[in-house]
Amino acid sequence: MKTVTIKEAAQMLLSHDNILILMHKSPDGDAIGSAYGLCAALRNAGKNAQPVCSDPIPEKYGYITDKLPFCEFEPEYIVSVDLADTQLFGEALECYKDKVSLCIDHHGSNTGFAEYGIIDASAGACAQILVPIIREMGVTVDSLIADAIFTGITTDTGCFKFSNASADSYRIAADMIDCGARSAMINRIMFDTKTRQHLALEKMALESLRYFENGSIAMITVTMDMMKQTGAQDCDLDGIASLPRQIEGVKIGITVKEKEPGFFKMSVRTTDDVNASKICALLNGGGHRAAAGCSVKGTREEAEGKILEAAKKIFSESEI
Amino acid sequence: MKTVTIKEAAQMLLSHDNILILMHKSPDGDAIGSAYGLCAALRNAGKNAQPVCSDPIPEKYGYITDKLPFCEFEPEYIVSVDLADTQLFGEALECYKDKVSLCIDHHGSNTGFAEYGIIDASAGACAQILVPIIREMGVTVDSLIADAIFTGITTDTGCFKFSNASADSYRIAADMIDCGARSAMINRIMFDTKTRQHLALEKMALESLRYFENGSIAMITVTMDMMKQTGAQDCDLDGIASLPRQIEGVKIGITVKEKEPGFFKMSVRTTDDVNASKICALLNGGGHRAAAGCSVKGTREEAEGKILEAAKKIFSESEI
Repeated sequence: MKTVTIKEAAQMLLSHDNILILMHKSPDGDAIGSAYGLCAALRNAGKNAQPVCSDPIPEKYGYITDKLPFCEFEPEYIVSVDLADTQLFGEALECYKDKVSLCIDHHGSNTGFAEYGIIDASAGACAQILVPIIREMGVTVDSLIADAIFTGITTDTGCFKFSNASADSYRIAADMIDCGARSAMINRIMFDTKTRQHLALEKMALESLRYFENGSIAMITVTMDMMKQTGAQDCDLDGIASLPRQIEGVKIGITVKEKEPGFFKMSVRTTDDVNASKICALLNGGGHRAAAGCSVKGTREEAEGKILEAAKKIFSESEI
Repeated sequence: MKTVTIKEAAQMLLSHDNILILMHKSPDGDAIGSAYGLCAALRNAGKNAQPVCSDPIPEKYGYITDKLPFCEFEPEYIVSVDLADTQLFGEALECYKDKVSLCIDHHGSNTGFAEYGIIDASAGACAQILVPIIREMGVTVDSLIADAIFTGITTDTGCFKFSNASADSYRIAADMIDCGARSAMINRIMFDTKTRQHLALEKMALESLRYFENGSIAMITVTMDMMKQTGAQDCDLDGIASLPRQIEGVKIGITVKEKEPGFFKMSVRTTDDVNASKICALLNGGGHRAAAGCSVKGTREEAEGKILEAAKKIFSESEI
């Protein structure tokens, strides 16, 4: 993949008319905000443009997606946003694996699958990178583009709570508000709304809460039975994985989730002192320093025991 | 009270040497951030300065307060920050009610108790107003001032989630990050940490959750018995009042809190469609459009019944 500048990326986009914008499967706010923000900008520049995804876009993003009706055309130019790896294309987009002309991303781990790319790993969200490209294209950032870009930034930075929220993230968010982004409404939809099922599940999961190592490790378990009893879906699980780590004094928060009988997925969240990916690596999983995951086959007791043993081992080796 | 400009306020501060900074009782992040931020700036300018409050400063603000050891001197000039009304001085500061020379605040409701004042109701946080004053004083914003100001902005805007978080709030926050504010750490302490007692109380309060009007109204009750059983203090209640309104579909969230036997305080939180202060006004309470409160004497059933009746009345009159 050949690296291009903001200016070159803008020129490449402007020199084509029928542009398909790919995003990753299980799309999040940054994928959706980046893809629809770029789409709106390209349409404002007189192009045919359409975002596509292997999975459906969750309804809660309707304030963006409803304003960009589906547009059918023969794709002439393929762009990807927030997409680090062809493995994340998903089934429906498999056919485009070798056909991406321009890749715009903020993952340092980007595999370089495209012909040209602009990767800025310092950007808290991919959506941040799009703003200078859109401006270079000569397109005015309207309220729809602003809503989309703001959504990307706020969701990928956890409402500006994570350490990837840089001064730039805040500053671009401010610019988007000046351009009409409905920041308070977007943050309420994304971060201040819980489904009844989520709440019921949270209450039930809290009953399984146990502390270890003098309260430094906390673990909760979500079983298939709890999901059934509360009527919760996977999307209602949002935020449950971060719950145990939020408790005062907890350095390692573990959420054990029964996916199938005899098969468990674990989410591990840690404070700065402990490396979550080291814990999950002991069970052949992986991830980042503060958030990682792995899976274990066996009974609930076996699964809980294994992840707990791994957590205790890394905890004892950590300099706290 | 005579209104002064940023420049005049800075000159007034610079022309005195022993400056006492008052904040309101039950101090929140904006009161503390504003007072300690201004104190740090004044000390950097070679002044004696000390923030004072009727109530103790919560320990979680130690990352600011620990860096500014107590300084004793004969006060020569009295300044107040984030203080709208002398009723909020609290017992220990009563003696200063008629002695405030300069009032810096962002409450439109400020009663004008001081000799001179600078009130900017458009500022999301009082801390925002201090930045231009500090710069006008010729003081460099160091990392301690930046931490304090950032704390004020993020706490008063609910981690940039409320509608009072303007483009300016985001932009000043960005400047503070550039000056060394530990934004991610501060947001984690303020918004991503729950005490064990809070969690236990939340779980118990959720058991009392009831829905009315097809799920448009949700009510939870926290009794003195629940507080005792979980060992929770008033500070552990943070966030519980906003819980019922966070549930999908809920337009009016009510939290009933038993303060003494036979005496209940209610917090009402609403979405844009319903005016919370109208509901509380029916029970001689008051507040803002989205957040209001009132109190009722009687049994738990009577208290719940009265606030529910008021909520249903205003709900039926709202155009939804």
